[in-house]
Amino acid sequence: MRIIGIDPGIAIMGYGIVDLIGNRLKVIEYGVVTTSSSTDTPKRLEILYQNLDDIIKEFNPDEYAIEELFFNQNVKTAITVGHARGIQVLCAQKNNLPIYEYTPLQIKQSITGYGRAIKKQMQLSIKTILNLSKTPTPDDAADALCVAVCHAFSQNFKEEFRMK
Amino acid sequence: MRIIGIDPGIAIMGYGIVDLIGNRLKVIEYGVVTTSSSTDTPKRLEILYQNLDDIIKEFNPDEYAIEELFFNQNVKTAITVGHARGIQVLCAQKNNLPIYEYTPLQIKQSITGYGRAIKKQMQLSIKTILNLSKTPTPDDAADALCVAVCHAFSQNFKEEFRMK
Repeated sequence: MRIIGIDPGIAIMGYGIVDLIGNRLKVIEYGVVTTSSSTDTPKRLEILYQNLDDIIKEFNPDEYAIEELFFNQNVKTAITVGHARGIQVLCAQKNNLPIYEYTPLQIKQSITGYGRAIKKQMQLSIKTILNLSKTPTPDDAADALCVAVCHAFSQNFKEEFRMK
Repeated sequence: MRIIGIDPGIAIMGYGIVDLIGNRLKVIEYGVVTTSSSTDTPKRLEILYQNLDDIIKEFNPDEYAIEELFFNQNVKTAITVGHARGIQVLCAQKNNLPIYEYTPLQIKQSITGYGRAIKKQMQLSIKTILNLSKTPTPDDAADALCVAVCHAFSQNFKEEFRMK
């Protein structure tokens, strides 16, 4: 079972791909797709879509997990990042992947056992869980691996997290 | 010059297509694409994308105008509608259309001369401007025609409204 985890964004989209074999987890690939703020939004969306589509077609995951957006206040930012996440969902859907979503809180709890874990704790945990020699970088790629592992840990009750 | 105007949304997306010939405006088509709230979001996004893609390929517009989202408070709604608008922008971009965007205020001012016009005034104005025998329905289709006509009226300074 191969899982792709996505840390959604417009400037930086993180992705992390893991294989779940029995109870073992194996990292296959991780990285980021970046777009410049000097590029027009329509082109940025196209770049993100095209790269994600290429990644999905190359690694052929079975399931797709994406973090839920969480914003306190800035509606303008929420709309812009909402645009990007929308195309990141569309891309999975057009590739016929089942889509699951997790809140930042659920991901933190799943990875560290603690819902208020800070970034440093998350990175240490994911390094240990995946038996990596060093912390995965950049941050957004590490975050995406956390999403993928969170979904791996949720296999027995994953239908609760199917995107509605 | 053929313009397609879009009233973005996830439950209802309005579209309106007009030809601008010299100073004359001619309605070509208008309508809505709807998705049910009982359908999962990924499928709703796919339905919207596919229908919009079909409409663009059928009517072959030269320019694409879309309303900007405006939300006061509800960040959750902003994100969901942001997802839909994101794929509505991606679809235009993938069809190589130049994309322009207008705020609700700009559209109202352009159509009625009054930025605080109510829906009824907008509908009467668009009926008159387009020389229609009756008010276009449903509301979202009428709104989309307003976006298209606003863009037609903005031809001389349209680059100001190119989506960035």
